[in-house]
Amino acid sequence: MTARIAHPALAERRMSAEQAAELILPGMTVGMSGFTGAGYPKAVPLALATRIAAAHDRGDKFALRILTGASTAPELDGALARVGGIDFRLPYQSDPELRARINAGQIEYMDIHLGQVAQYAWCGFLGKIDVALVEVAGILPDGRLVPSTSVGNNKTWLDLADKVILEVNRRQPEGLDGMHDIYYGTALPPHRRPIPLLQPGDRIGEPYLRCDLDKVVAVVESDAPDRLGRFAPPDEASRRIAGHLVEFFRHEIAAGRLGEQLLPLQSGVGNIANAVLGGLREGGFRGLTAFTEVIQDGMLELIGDGTIAMASATSLSLSPEGVEKFVRRIDFYRQHIVLRPQEMSNHAELVRRLGCIAMNGMVEADIYGNVNSTHVAGSRIINGIGGSGDFARNGFLSCFMSPSTAKGGAISSLVPMVSHVDHTEHDVGLVVTEQGLADLRGLSPKQRARVVIAQCAHPDYRPMLQDYFDRACRDSYGKHTPHLLSEALSWHQRYLDSGSMR
Amino acid sequence: MTARIAHPALAERRMSAEQAAELILPGMTVGMSGFTGAGYPKAVPLALATRIAAAHDRGDKFALRILTGASTAPELDGALARVGGIDFRLPYQSDPELRARINAGQIEYMDIHLGQVAQYAWCGFLGKIDVALVEVAGILPDGRLVPSTSVGNNKTWLDLADKVILEVNRRQPEGLDGMHDIYYGTALPPHRRPIPLLQPGDRIGEPYLRCDLDKVVAVVESDAPDRLGRFAPPDEASRRIAGHLVEFFRHEIAAGRLGEQLLPLQSGVGNIANAVLGGLREGGFRGLTAFTEVIQDGMLELIGDGTIAMASATSLSLSPEGVEKFVRRIDFYRQHIVLRPQEMSNHAELVRRLGCIAMNGMVEADIYGNVNSTHVAGSRIINGIGGSGDFARNGFLSCFMSPSTAKGGAISSLVPMVSHVDHTEHDVGLVVTEQGLADLRGLSPKQRARVVIAQCAHPDYRPMLQDYFDRACRDSYGKHTPHLLSEALSWHQRYLDSGSMR
Repeated sequence: MTARIAHPALAERRMSAEQAAELILPGMTVGMSGFTGAGYPKAVPLALATRIAAAHDRGDKFALRILTGASTAPELDGALARVGGIDFRLPYQSDPELRARINAGQIEYMDIHLGQVAQYAWCGFLGKIDVALVEVAGILPDGRLVPSTSVGNNKTWLDLADKVILEVNRRQPEGLDGMHDIYYGTALPPHRRPIPLLQPGDRIGEPYLRCDLDKVVAVVESDAPDRLGRFAPPDEASRRIAGHLVEFFRHEIAAGRLGEQLLPLQSGVGNIANAVLGGLREGGFRGLTAFTEVIQDGMLELIGDGTIAMASATSLSLSPEGVEKFVRRIDFYRQHIVLRPQEMSNHAELVRRLGCIAMNGMVEADIYGNVNSTHVAGSRIINGIGGSGDFARNGFLSCFMSPSTAKGGAISSLVPMVSHVDHTEHDVGLVVTEQGLADLRGLSPKQRARVVIAQCAHPDYRPMLQDYFDRACRDSYGKHTPHLLSEALSWHQRYLDSGSMR
Repeated sequence: MTARIAHPALAERRMSAEQAAELILPGMTVGMSGFTGAGYPKAVPLALATRIAAAHDRGDKFALRILTGASTAPELDGALARVGGIDFRLPYQSDPELRARINAGQIEYMDIHLGQVAQYAWCGFLGKIDVALVEVAGILPDGRLVPSTSVGNNKTWLDLADKVILEVNRRQPEGLDGMHDIYYGTALPPHRRPIPLLQPGDRIGEPYLRCDLDKVVAVVESDAPDRLGRFAPPDEASRRIAGHLVEFFRHEIAAGRLGEQLLPLQSGVGNIANAVLGGLREGGFRGLTAFTEVIQDGMLELIGDGTIAMASATSLSLSPEGVEKFVRRIDFYRQHIVLRPQEMSNHAELVRRLGCIAMNGMVEADIYGNVNSTHVAGSRIINGIGGSGDFARNGFLSCFMSPSTAKGGAISSLVPMVSHVDHTEHDVGLVVTEQGLADLRGLSPKQRARVVIAQCAHPDYRPMLQDYFDRACRDSYGKHTPHLLSEALSWHQRYLDSGSMR
């Protein structure tokens, strides 16, 4: 019995990753931990990939339905996709190998709002969950589980699965103990009650995951870090986007529509999100809050220096340097961070009540304010919608950000009509590029188009957009949302044909 | 002082509709009552239209920003649109005259989720509200207002507007008194608290609207019915759609995913919705609940016979025959109906908690499960999204229904790509036509396409859709959501060019 596995009976169920992988059979649905590269199982999926490859070598079929919290890492999505071990996957991914196979048509992928996965599973819409494979930071003497660097859908997988495989990762900081808040007050309708959370930092549950110990068929010890890349400093475009948004916040404060502490921030992943956070610090904001999915290095810094007083998330997704900083002051951070199930971090009720400011990246927006977050040219998935819809629909304000061009200017991220819609005209409050900010609140489609073209489009594409809009206003079948259908998607087709939208 | 105006000081502010209309000045923003043709002001808008026409005859500019609950009637939207008196309108309309002018590009129209209008207004996103023009059924001795047949956004307009004009309509049943539940516990974030509603019939507020009497600049007496059309019996296609849906519910009950009383029903307006309600009665369902926007004749009948035990809505939108039935048993209905502000009837928190079953009509769906609720050929607005998004996103299950063809078969309501997206692939659970029901829960895009084509498409269009899908699967840039962009909207263009999608 190791210190991390303090429950005697569970300690006896220790086995190798290879032995545990033997318990997962072809065709099973496996609910795995992992959210934006944090807290995913690191040993069993690799062993499982080896087992699947061997089965395929023998000519046997072996593929699984894999459900997670969100994206994982090469040791999970990459390894399983590479051996053809996944035939269905949800709800979010970012692995190059997995993405390639989805776009090759070899893997079925369902892109679902992150805040709705648990409800879907509980309502039986995702079928039976055969196995939960969950990384934890430790097992208490009474069998309760210390969650790892992400909570994700772990509560749901543990509760619903027939069998449970635990990976106890001794590399995860012991100081995580006490940082989590697992809410056990959920129910299926018609038995649901209000969720008693009033502020981002409220603790409404328990620090540990419960688990029916009779279901635990394997405990595997692992010792490997979350595999996350370095934290890159924001580029010029991101800094300019951040500047526009911070200026907007100042304007809203002056107009009395926001207070000095804004409202709880939801911040998507990546370079732009980090630049915005940095911009808030440089802009002198203090004592902010975050009610978001992921805490990355950028947010950790802001918690460290008091810009953000309290952050709620479901995942701690840090670079190796970020982990070092985190561990050094873990007792400080535990006072300022709460990690929750993604069902709670992204819950419609809470996002609406708290009035989150949703700030997310996008692939493209069209002149009427529809946003594509997921697809290239309408067909090829990039990652997935993640939680952007949970926040954009129900929050106080939804903001979508992107540089105005991509691929060295060959692609305009402002187009006549988006090739895929993840956020409709009804759900987009602000569109921001390095060129400027379009405030779409309270505007009709044509009013939006004028602002988007004037404020957000790159000068190389602005005349083309204006020309489309002018001709559409003249020749469109209806003048509410003027479009020329034979031309609306021609920019994307031109890109596919010639490599450029120009 | 009449019996309906029991407050002495307000009785002294009685004046004619013409006098009251003089208080509304060019460029003002007017928040009006009215939701799906119920409870809209009937006298002042007509007088206002006359005043505006006279101003225009003199060569003066005179147009208003008109905000309502939802659709009104010819005396409001029609009359004001006809004289060019509206330059901006939200959030939902269905008037032919108004629609024509929006689609001619003469009126700016913002199509916003009905459940979000109040929040938008309170947050200052819609600008200043100059005048509230609200129909009520009466004024109590202490100045509180007895709401009329709809509540809509009246609380918000009364609270926010600088000035208030009340229309006291003596034609509205006095028995409405006590049927409403106006919740005054709302707040702006970060001060929001859980809304204490656990069941559709819970009363959490007050039966009357509060009003700062100092703001009341006019009280106008009116005597006219809500102008609503006859209630048509469901046609064959609607009955078949209803049949598929009722069969689905039975299947879900058998599978243990729904109880015998289902979950609170949200039912859109119109023929199909009424057919579904009728189908539930014929299917032997009893003691159901509704948490919805509108109670139409169909639902009233079901309340009357016990199929629906309790219905919550924001509007009572009845035909003249429906009104007669309602008035005859008004004391009975008051025990089974609660009318709320639309902010509550459509609130994300409540829709999610209660687990509503959202049943709405659609214009078209595409093979991947994206739904267009609002536009013809991407440009021409029909009515608006209404509350469908409030319920589809946050409920237990979202169902979209339409006959598989329109215009005598010239239009297929299943298309390769919808020409406008109101509900994304992430928000559509079921698609139902008279051909059959596509259960999209838990499916990837390609899996959805196969089910939609096989179950929902009209036989005349099924081979065309299959052909598109097959070629897209072969030739698409990405195989996650296979599309041929140069062809994706060609069905709509063909309809515009030739009058048929065939």
